[in-house]
Amino acid sequence: MRATVIHGYRDVRLEELPDSRIVEPTDAVVRVVASCICGSDLWQYRREEERPDGPWQIGHEFLGIVEQVGSAVATVREGDVVIAPFVWSDNTCELCLDGLHTSCLHGGGWGSPGVDGGQGEKVRVPQADGTLVAAPVGEDSELIPALLALSDVMGTGHHAARAAGVGPGSHVAVVGDGAVGLCAVLAATRLGAERITIFSRHEDRTAVARRFGATDVIPERGEDALARAEEGTGGLGFHHVIEAVGSTQSWETSLGIARPGGTVGFVGVPIGAGGGIPPWPLFDKNLTVRGGVAPVRAYLPELLAEVLDGHLDPSPVFDLELPLSHVAEGYAAMDERRAIKVLLRPGA
Amino acid sequence: MRATVIHGYRDVRLEELPDSRIVEPTDAVVRVVASCICGSDLWQYRREEERPDGPWQIGHEFLGIVEQVGSAVATVREGDVVIAPFVWSDNTCELCLDGLHTSCLHGGGWGSPGVDGGQGEKVRVPQADGTLVAAPVGEDSELIPALLALSDVMGTGHHAARAAGVGPGSHVAVVGDGAVGLCAVLAATRLGAERITIFSRHEDRTAVARRFGATDVIPERGEDALARAEEGTGGLGFHHVIEAVGSTQSWETSLGIARPGGTVGFVGVPIGAGGGIPPWPLFDKNLTVRGGVAPVRAYLPELLAEVLDGHLDPSPVFDLELPLSHVAEGYAAMDERRAIKVLLRPGA
Repeated sequence: MRATVIHGYRDVRLEELPDSRIVEPTDAVVRVVASCICGSDLWQYRREEERPDGPWQIGHEFLGIVEQVGSAVATVREGDVVIAPFVWSDNTCELCLDGLHTSCLHGGGWGSPGVDGGQGEKVRVPQADGTLVAAPVGEDSELIPALLALSDVMGTGHHAARAAGVGPGSHVAVVGDGAVGLCAVLAATRLGAERITIFSRHEDRTAVARRFGATDVIPERGEDALARAEEGTGGLGFHHVIEAVGSTQSWETSLGIARPGGTVGFVGVPIGAGGGIPPWPLFDKNLTVRGGVAPVRAYLPELLAEVLDGHLDPSPVFDLELPLSHVAEGYAAMDERRAIKVLLRPGA
Repeated sequence: MRATVIHGYRDVRLEELPDSRIVEPTDAVVRVVASCICGSDLWQYRREEERPDGPWQIGHEFLGIVEQVGSAVATVREGDVVIAPFVWSDNTCELCLDGLHTSCLHGGGWGSPGVDGGQGEKVRVPQADGTLVAAPVGEDSELIPALLALSDVMGTGHHAARAAGVGPGSHVAVVGDGAVGLCAVLAATRLGAERITIFSRHEDRTAVARRFGATDVIPERGEDALARAEEGTGGLGFHHVIEAVGSTQSWETSLGIARPGGTVGFVGVPIGAGGGIPPWPLFDKNLTVRGGVAPVRAYLPELLAEVLDGHLDPSPVFDLELPLSHVAEGYAAMDERRAIKVLLRPGA
C-alpha cells in the first residue's frame, strides 16, 4: 500500500509500505476513501530541528471502508463506511465515559509505532469498536467531505465553542481563520450565537466564515485588533473567545479581547505559545481558560446525525482536492496559505 | 497620622503623614482598628529592582471605624465598624453587578496616588458606599481578627474554591500553605468537600490546615509530589485543584496533579510565574483554569453573616499580633516564614 511519510523539514513523500493488517483482535483494517491535511500536520512539516526518531507515517484524519475486522470487533463490519476520530480510544474507560476520549487510558495517536498514519491507502485501527463510527452512506456519497470534517476540524471547532461557553444569544470572538477557526464559527452558529466576530485578513477565509455565520470581521492584528474589539463590545470585551491558533500572539489577542469574567475556549496546538499562556490578563480579569485537544469521538454521534439530515455542512473548509499521489503539493499549498484545507482521495 | 511606607528592598517604615481627609463627596475616612500583612505585600517587599516611583503607602487589608463621611455617602455612618475589601469599588457598575468588583469601572487600589494604604492609622476610602461593609460589632469585639480576614484572605480562599468548582463530596487539592491556601481549605470545607489534600511541609501550617478541614497532607514537592498525588487519586489526579502561590513551580504542580477534564482555581498573584502558565498540560488534559484577583466585596455579605453567627472562623491564620509600630518586624517575620500572617493593631 502507499502511505505518506514525513522525513524532515518540508519533506513529505508517498511511499510503498507493507499492507496494514490485523495485529490485535480488537483491530480493524480500513481502506481509506478520503483523508486530509491538518493545520497541526504543518507544525511537523515546518519543524526545522533534527529528528532522531527518523521518518514516520503522518496524517490523522480519514474516512474509509472496513476491509477486515479482528475477532473481538462487534460494532463495525466489513463494508461499513466509517469515520475515524483523530485519536483512537476504547470508548469504555473511565475517562472516555467522562467524554475525554483524547485521554483514553488505552488509546493513542495515528502514526505512532505500529499504527498507520491517516494519509495513506489503508490504516490499521486499534480499538476499532471504540474508535470507528459507521455512517450509512456509500463511498461515493456527496457527503464524504462533510463527514470527513467530523474526524477532526468540525469536532474541534465544536469543542472550542463549547469550551468558550457559547450558547443562544452569545457574542463570540474567533481568533484564527484556519479550518478549525472556521468550523468554530459554524459551531457557534449552531449553538445559537447571535453575533460572531472573526479576526481574519484573508478574503477567501472570511468568505467561508460569513457563509458559516460570522457577522463581523476584524482584519487588524495586535494593538489595533484590541482597539477594534473594544469598539465592538462597548469597551468591555467579549464574554466568549475562541483561540484557534496556538501562538503567543493569538493568546495575547484572545486574552486581551476577553471581557472581565469572560471565557476563552482554546484548541490551538500550543506549539507556538513559547513559554506559556500570559498569566496577568487571566489574573487581572478573572478569565476562564478551558479547552485543549478535542475529544471529537464524544461529539461524533451528535454531529453525524446533523450532517446526514442536511443541517450541518462543514465541507466548505476543503477548498482544494488532490489525489493522494500529490500529497506533497497539498502540504505546500497549505503551508503557503494557498489552500485552507486539502482533501486527498487515494483512488484518484 | 502614622502609616506604613515602603521605600525599597526589605525596607518598610512607619512614618508620620498628613491625616486622611475627605476629597470627594463619596469618600469616607476610616480610623483603622486592625490591619494585616498580605503574602502579596511580600512581593513588593522582596522586589530588588530600582523603584523610580519612589516610596508609597502599603497595605490593603483593614477594618476600622468610620470617622467622617462625604456628603454623598448614604450606607455607612460615623461610628460604624466597617470592613474594607482589598480594592475599592462602586458596587453599581456593570462589572460590579457581574460580581467582579476587582474590575470595577470606577474602582482602584489602596496605596495608589491620593489614596492611603491600609497599614496605617487612618485611610481615605473612595466610593465608601460601594466599598465598605458595616459589621454590627464593637471595636473591641473578639471577632475582629475573623472579620479582618474577610478583607482579603478568606474571600480569596473562597474565590479559589469556587473557581475550582468545589462542591459537596469533592476531592480537592490545595497547592500553597500560606494564609490564602489555608483559607481555601476552610472554604472548601464550607462548600462541602469530602476530602482535602494540602501540599505543605510546615507543621505549623498543616496544623491550621487540619483544623480547617484538610484530610491529607503531602509534604513532597516537584516530581515526588506528583507521584504522591497519583497514589491518592487512583492514578488519575484531582478533579479540583487550588493554586494559591503564583510561582512556576506551583503552577507545574497544580496542572500536573489535575485529572484530565479537571479544574484549577487560581488566586496566586502570578509575579513568580515567569513567562506564563505551561500550556501543554492544559491542552493535553483538557483542563479548565479559572480565577484571578478575588472580588471579595461580592462575597462579604455571605461570609460576614457566617462569621457573626459563629459558623465561620478564619482567625487562626493570624499567628502573630504586633503593634503597628512594629510593622517592620511583622514583614520580616512573614518574609522569613516565622509567621503565617501578621495582624497589626494601630492603638497598641
